[in-house]
Amino acid sequence: MILPTLLRTTRRQISALSAVQHVREFSTPARNPALASWTEDDKTYFQQLLKPESVLTDADDTETYTVDWLKKYKAQSNHQMVLKPKTTEQVSAILKYCNERNLPVVPQGGNTGLVGGSVPVYDEVVLSTSSMNNVISFDEVSGILVCEAGCILENLDNHVAKHGYMMPLDLGAKGTCQIGGNVATNAGGLRLLRYGSLHGTVLGIEAVLADGTVIDCLSTMRKDNTGYDLKQLFIGSEGTLGVVTKVSILTPPRSSSKNVALLACEDFEACQKAFVEAKKHLGEVLSAVEFMDRQSLDMVLSQQDWTKDPLETPSTYYVLIETSGSNSDHDVEKLEAYLEDVMGSGVVVDGTVAQDEAQAQKLFLIREDITVALAARGLAPTDAKVVCYGHIGDCNVHLNISTLEYDDHVFSALEPFIFEWTSKYRGSISAEHGIGTHKPEYLHLSKSNNAIKLMQQMKHMMDPKGILNPYKVLPVAK
Amino acid sequence: MILPTLLRTTRRQISALSAVQHVREFSTPARNPALASWTEDDKTYFQQLLKPESVLTDADDTETYTVDWLKKYKAQSNHQMVLKPKTTEQVSAILKYCNERNLPVVPQGGNTGLVGGSVPVYDEVVLSTSSMNNVISFDEVSGILVCEAGCILENLDNHVAKHGYMMPLDLGAKGTCQIGGNVATNAGGLRLLRYGSLHGTVLGIEAVLADGTVIDCLSTMRKDNTGYDLKQLFIGSEGTLGVVTKVSILTPPRSSSKNVALLACEDFEACQKAFVEAKKHLGEVLSAVEFMDRQSLDMVLSQQDWTKDPLETPSTYYVLIETSGSNSDHDVEKLEAYLEDVMGSGVVVDGTVAQDEAQAQKLFLIREDITVALAARGLAPTDAKVVCYGHIGDCNVHLNISTLEYDDHVFSALEPFIFEWTSKYRGSISAEHGIGTHKPEYLHLSKSNNAIKLMQQMKHMMDPKGILNPYKVLPVAK
Repeated sequence: MILPTLLRTTRRQISALSAVQHVREFSTPARNPALASWTEDDKTYFQQLLKPESVLTDADDTETYTVDWLKKYKAQSNHQMVLKPKTTEQVSAILKYCNERNLPVVPQGGNTGLVGGSVPVYDEVVLSTSSMNNVISFDEVSGILVCEAGCILENLDNHVAKHGYMMPLDLGAKGTCQIGGNVATNAGGLRLLRYGSLHGTVLGIEAVLADGTVIDCLSTMRKDNTGYDLKQLFIGSEGTLGVVTKVSILTPPRSSSKNVALLACEDFEACQKAFVEAKKHLGEVLSAVEFMDRQSLDMVLSQQDWTKDPLETPSTYYVLIETSGSNSDHDVEKLEAYLEDVMGSGVVVDGTVAQDEAQAQKLFLIREDITVALAARGLAPTDAKVVCYGHIGDCNVHLNISTLEYDDHVFSALEPFIFEWTSKYRGSISAEHGIGTHKPEYLHLSKSNNAIKLMQQMKHMMDPKGILNPYKVLPVAK
Repeated sequence: MILPTLLRTTRRQISALSAVQHVREFSTPARNPALASWTEDDKTYFQQLLKPESVLTDADDTETYTVDWLKKYKAQSNHQMVLKPKTTEQVSAILKYCNERNLPVVPQGGNTGLVGGSVPVYDEVVLSTSSMNNVISFDEVSGILVCEAGCILENLDNHVAKHGYMMPLDLGAKGTCQIGGNVATNAGGLRLLRYGSLHGTVLGIEAVLADGTVIDCLSTMRKDNTGYDLKQLFIGSEGTLGVVTKVSILTPPRSSSKNVALLACEDFEACQKAFVEAKKHLGEVLSAVEFMDRQSLDMVLSQQDWTKDPLETPSTYYVLIETSGSNSDHDVEKLEAYLEDVMGSGVVVDGTVAQDEAQAQKLFLIREDITVALAARGLAPTDAKVVCYGHIGDCNVHLNISTLEYDDHVFSALEPFIFEWTSKYRGSISAEHGIGTHKPEYLHLSKSNNAIKLMQQMKHMMDPKGILNPYKVLPVAK
């Protein structure tokens, strides 16, 4: 059995991920008695509205939609229904019907979330956007892509690559996650340092409100100051204010040149200096600045047999630098000048630059494999480990505590202590992964009471019956 | 008398600016009978709350606050009061009091807007943020600035420049406009092409609601997915949902190298090609792509004696390219390769590259002076002119119709025709300048009825008495 507990945190920001497989029972919020359960009549209605094959109720068919990919969050009921509409009109009709019937609905994209936001808590109807996966348009002059919510991120990246562009976001889950889910959860990922958050790159959204009203804000303009920017409401609200059905997004030109360097630093202050100098020297070509401590590297080296220590002498901390640009010679020259500076001043004590794409990928894979190594560690009979790694370029570093088995004592020592400690320094209890069902009760540690009250008012205004993704994001209003 | 009519439009986006000075009476929205007028008792209350010198009521003192800088929008009353609080607590106390008394309030920054959003329509109380102008913090590692709303943009840019950073936005009005007003109007400006909109670069906001509630979302993190992103509500809502009191913003590293080139194209398709090729060749160093037609250039040449035709042979269209980077040699090399390509292929038929900063500024000044030249043109006895220029890099090109005197016949032929035509192509009736008092009745041409209804619901929820910046942005709910 694999029984690790992973906790990711930092003084500035924290993302908590507790990967317990079929072991720990998470506390489930009380069922809202005002919400109904779907009946055979409802099923018949949906079969007539959609095609019969777009309505799934057999356990074999619904299973992958009702548990998250870490198998941590699982619907507390065997009475499940998944709807797979193909058009905005169908989404609208489904929601209108569900709202009238008080039927709760869970909007779902690729179901790659980590906080239980995309699976039912009880027997909410799953509205999957998987069958809404058409690219609507791509403008080669502006680089603006318009597509349906169910398009898979990697497919979109491949689509715009043909025209010399790239998606402004990239995630480990890119082969499965959908752009609608990315937008609904405000996914961050590897390109955020360079291209910013979806609040800036998403230009338009079409969304359907709880009562079926279609809000068409599918602008394809970089500038449009006409009234309140409603699309922002749906970015990061985790499907609780509306279902995103279409997205318009600005894609940047694809970089033709990429370089990766792994640098060793003796203390954390030196890592910060290495980052600041990277911004100065590499400026416009800097595309990623990642961080890991020796424990993280050891974890990968001890678990993954494909790699060996990339530097000769062990160091306390490591910084991974990536550049992306349009001219390889220029980028290498900038990188060399940077390395000369930081190694000359002693900020960096050792380092290696990837000589080709395979080496570059391998260096990045060490960073990416830390999570996998942590999760696999339960198999080996070793002690508890505290490791730290993450996106130092976004001021977002993860602290992980890994134990061999899930241990209530350790867990209760960590949560909510780690959230409270983060809150004291005005950090975020969820930098990247959202709130879902995991953290509504801790939201007050990152947001003020006035802010939470305003969120609850917005939720009540836009979804007065509370049918959209119930039990998620917001604490129950007092 | 200076009597031009300027209309800026494009197939994609439109910003209308009608610079008529003391001439045309704009239709004024009907006064809301539920709103009160301030009395001597109110004045006494505010004098006790603030210092007496922070409460202005003499006409000489209030005049600059009650008319916009183009002198197009002027309060329809001589009964004016301006409050200049110094703290968030004072803003909160003012709004709480005004809300209880049904006193309408106009939040005002630098008062550099163009659509009448920052001046009273009748005798609303002006809440000026001018006295809230402290920088709170700047983090040299992350480049994150936190400051009060009344800080002047140029001062902030100078402040962060000392640390090697720059503000992510730049406007012609930078010496007067305030960051709070920039945020409240979602100001675009010259750096948007490279650094994106304020929806992406603003990381946090503190704002005060109509009833005095302080919403503290002053995050200093690039990533914070904890609940709805409330700060987005205030960005671009023109002071109708709350008063922005503090801002946290991400500043990019300052570029040490800058180059400017003016290119001539024979048709608009060639201009578009020049833009697309610029993105490919100049990629990460491209910082501005501006456009003007021959008529625009002629207008500047005929009005401004400081310049002469920058290219030997006249052409139909011109594209102005700016690069900003961290390595001058690299940038020049990239620019040369780009010019070789576009001139070799005939996309560009002529061009000049600025040899020093003075030449670069002069080339940009031609573009910037088009507006001034249009406004000054009424002085010369020439015919009506149709000119086109603007931010082609943001897909935002302005069409201007200039007449010698304000002419009702011409005006009524242009408005609302030009808005309706833009709407037909899903353009924006206000790309940059907002809605203010000028365009609420045309909002439906850019936003659907469902979207406007949702905006009205939000306004009603957050400001049920309608005291915040009344008569602005939204049409009267039906």
